Amino acid sequence: MKQSKNLNDLIDALTILPGVGRKSAQRMAYQLIRSNNDLTLNLADKLNNITSNIASCKVCGIYLDIEDVDKQVNGECHICIAQNKDPSKICVTESPSDAYIIDQSTDYNGYFFVLDGSLSPLDGRGPIEVGIKRLQQNLEEKKITELILATSTTVEGEATAHYVQQLASKMSIKVSRIAFGIPLNGELGYLDSETISHAFNERKII
Amino acid sequence: MKQSKNLNDLIDALTILPGVGRKSAQRMAYQLIRSNNDLTLNLADKLNNITSNIASCKVCGIYLDIEDVDKQVNGECHICIAQNKDPSKICVTESPSDAYIIDQSTDYNGYFFVLDGSLSPLDGRGPIEVGIKRLQQNLEEKKITELILATSTTVEGEATAHYVQQLASKMSIKVSRIAFGIPLNGELGYLDSETISHAFNERKII
Repeated sequence: MKQSKNLNDLIDALTILPGVGRKSAQRMAYQLIRSNNDLTLNLADKLNNITSNIASCKVCGIYLDIEDVDKQVNGECHICIAQNKDPSKICVTESPSDAYIIDQSTDYNGYFFVLDGSLSPLDGRGPIEVGIKRLQQNLEEKKITELILATSTTVEGEATAHYVQQLASKMSIKVSRIAFGIPLNGELGYLDSETISHAFNERKII
Repeated sequence: MKQSKNLNDLIDALTILPGVGRKSAQRMAYQLIRSNNDLTLNLADKLNNITSNIASCKVCGIYLDIEDVDKQVNGECHICIAQNKDPSKICVTESPSDAYIIDQSTDYNGYFFVLDGSLSPLDGRGPIEVGIKRLQQNLEEKKITELILATSTTVEGEATAHYVQQLASKMSIKVSRIAFGIPLNGELGYLDSETISHAFNERKII
């Protein structure tokens, strides 16, 4: 059976989504055809939108709507210029989504700084490429007393954390790292042994 | 942190995809912003495309490109009018994707008939709504000797299968049902007990 070309094209296009292979894409495409056309057109419209209307804050790197960036003379975002924040702390993440998730889940109200991924010298991603130079400038301009490292536990994430820690220590800034261990409500049986071993070794006296 | 409105709108729009909740949608949206704009625009374009360029065959119900349907005078698809097919068999499915999957995975070369879902009287989905009337006309016009039921094993799927079987039996058409049991290469430990129990009771002497 020759499948509809339009349908096939959509299936191919859907595979750019993370975690979506051809099988899921096919399921999605068939579902979209059955669903309300307005919803599908809305999705198409929103996709178009982000290709031209999203910018990142020139200071911290968080994603913003272009019109919001244009409103501020120096391209800083509303978080960077907020008045009621704690100006002594900065949290360093590998991606804008990590910064957003931390903001949503905690009562942290200091600065954020989003690196452009993590250090990976073999892939040509050195301190300048990931934005550590920009971070340094940022630290020099602001009166930061604590830098919170929220990079991942991958080899690259740890290397990045180490590099940033060295840099901040030289500037006499206290450096902390978010805690790793068993997730709250997590069942040991479903966790990888690396996490369990780490949690066991890093146990705290109570 | 106020998240970008364009980003938020995209996250909301992505949740229309099957199996995609807010968390996955957020991951997808952030990934799309980082990825090549051309790929995102292409996806938007293909989504637009299917809202206006897909039709279903008036006879069997399989999805087709509009231009392919227009080529044939009576709105039949290329499968319905194919010359090298077995005109004595018809396979009944609940959705166009099921028909496509069977076509791709087997050497079946008879007719297909796609119902519009399955019978569900409580939701107001009777024989006319799901297209059993159309199926009956189809059976009357064609010289079918075997009807293959490929509806699902849900309560509704079974009810639909039963209804179609009664109809076909009255017309002296042999009715068969695809086999249910342990998937090939499936591990018993990962299967639900209902499937295992069914497979056990329906064991075949070899």
